[in-house]
Amino acid sequence: MASLSKSYLDLVNDCDSLPYDEPLQAPREHWSTLYRFFLPEDSRPHGLMLPEIVKKMPWTSDFHVDHTARAVHLKPEDTTSDLSTSCTNAFSKLIQRSIDQDNFIVIHKRHSEHYPIVGYKHPVKFERYAGNLFGFVSRGAHLTVHSNTKDGMKIWVPRRSAHLFTYPNCLDTTVAGGVPAGEGPFECIVREADEEASLAEDLVRREAKACGCITYVGLTDPRGNGEQGLLSSDLIYVYDLELPEGVGCRQNDDEVKEFHLMSIEEVKQGLRAGEFKTNSALVMIDFFIRHGIIKSEEEKHYTEIMARLHRKLPLPTAAE
Amino acid sequence: MASLSKSYLDLVNDCDSLPYDEPLQAPREHWSTLYRFFLPEDSRPHGLMLPEIVKKMPWTSDFHVDHTARAVHLKPEDTTSDLSTSCTNAFSKLIQRSIDQDNFIVIHKRHSEHYPIVGYKHPVKFERYAGNLFGFVSRGAHLTVHSNTKDGMKIWVPRRSAHLFTYPNCLDTTVAGGVPAGEGPFECIVREADEEASLAEDLVRREAKACGCITYVGLTDPRGNGEQGLLSSDLIYVYDLELPEGVGCRQNDDEVKEFHLMSIEEVKQGLRAGEFKTNSALVMIDFFIRHGIIKSEEEKHYTEIMARLHRKLPLPTAAE
Repeated sequence: MASLSKSYLDLVNDCDSLPYDEPLQAPREHWSTLYRFFLPEDSRPHGLMLPEIVKKMPWTSDFHVDHTARAVHLKPEDTTSDLSTSCTNAFSKLIQRSIDQDNFIVIHKRHSEHYPIVGYKHPVKFERYAGNLFGFVSRGAHLTVHSNTKDGMKIWVPRRSAHLFTYPNCLDTTVAGGVPAGEGPFECIVREADEEASLAEDLVRREAKACGCITYVGLTDPRGNGEQGLLSSDLIYVYDLELPEGVGCRQNDDEVKEFHLMSIEEVKQGLRAGEFKTNSALVMIDFFIRHGIIKSEEEKHYTEIMARLHRKLPLPTAAE
Repeated sequence: MASLSKSYLDLVNDCDSLPYDEPLQAPREHWSTLYRFFLPEDSRPHGLMLPEIVKKMPWTSDFHVDHTARAVHLKPEDTTSDLSTSCTNAFSKLIQRSIDQDNFIVIHKRHSEHYPIVGYKHPVKFERYAGNLFGFVSRGAHLTVHSNTKDGMKIWVPRRSAHLFTYPNCLDTTVAGGVPAGEGPFECIVREADEEASLAEDLVRREAKACGCITYVGLTDPRGNGEQGLLSSDLIYVYDLELPEGVGCRQNDDEVKEFHLMSIEEVKQGLRAGEFKTNSALVMIDFFIRHGIIKSEEEKHYTEIMARLHRKLPLPTAAE
């Protein structure tokens, strides 16, 4: 690790890894093979699936695969319930069948928490681990906690526990988590700030500030354990919190090993060394840009980095 | 004006008006008609020109038009000077010829200040008014000056003079200007803050903070006086400055009629009423998002707005 020297653009490339189409050119090869996933009463695709996943998925009779149009349509057989319930149940049955048959590594035989389908008008839930198989948009929320000290700005950086399934021992954003169904990003941050960093609810409600969001499209990590090359459209809401003097972050649950109050230079070293969880590195780069720590005069790829941190996702993010 | 009620997304659409290609679809019609503009020793196009402009341009022998490849190549005849000088001179001769022949409304027979070609390794200059004809990236810098008052945050908003050629009488960012050749965005802000708002150089150097950049691709405004439908790739560096109590902005040059210290609600009203210069409205929206004034829970199009404010430009922004 110590010999790595990653640039900020390298770190962006690690997450925003799906190639862009070139202007004036035909779409790249990867698009032509994908299947679009449709939900009832919405003409826009909400998922993008690899053909090998479409083939392997143990579809129930709620789903209709059209190989000519390269499309999958969810049309729940149950027409007596509301769409939210019938679609959620259809996903639930399908995932249960996938778990029973053990078809997919990313699900690895386990149920997971419920995520919403972003940009769909009905509150439909699916299980988090299955999201990448369908190419749904995945929502997270990250809070960067910083303090002004006599030695300048410092940032509270946790090290992840060694036993975690993803990114063990990596450095991370102060507080971070997926935003489950039925919860807004700010409420998610309030909850996680207590669970992960022992920060009091009233402090977080009063002082945490929404500062935008980050979006990128990745291909699932070939270094990971799961299926490779799945499209992963990620949306991360970012928040800042400046701690008053005398207040600090404290390890609370077993996801975090320990917290360090790092100088900007120490965080930069951690980024260069590739020590941060990959998407947490992007949150830190966005923080550095918003706080004037990375400047256009010093970072040649400033404009590209800003655009890549805010990629227009290929799927809807607002209900029609 | 009072009857308008523009949403934040409407304001974004006013600037970022070039349609996006849909994922999985062939590129849109507009791309197939464009000519790419190439500079020496760089394989990437630095400009995108409409065919009618290519036809109308009084090309000198420094430029080579290839109608089959839909490309224009600058190959300066003068091979004794360095490329920076020979390319700059070639543009200068061409623009002079355009002015003499009065071919283009956007130049309207006048010389204008020198802009650099963004992302080209040699410092080549062209005249600002001609930039849109070639579809070069245009650089600006905007500074939002705010104060914390007993009634909450307020923003210093100027009203543009009635005699200005563009956007007379509109509301604007506190300080804004194009970034000319040979000047960095921060230096531009320091200079303009004195010229436009009477802010002392040492104050601006000490307190102004770089906060990112905005990018979008427009088609020149059909309500304007110039050629229509030109591609306009804009890059705006954004800065914030929180004024200490007792310091204010004061009209200095004749571009600004007057300054008002507006509440957030007053700025929101000005945005809804379409009173802001179009790209200054985007700078204000970006400011609102970075400062938690616009929240994802309240703005349905939050994610789309963030992506559209940071569009990946179809032209290079960093030298190879």
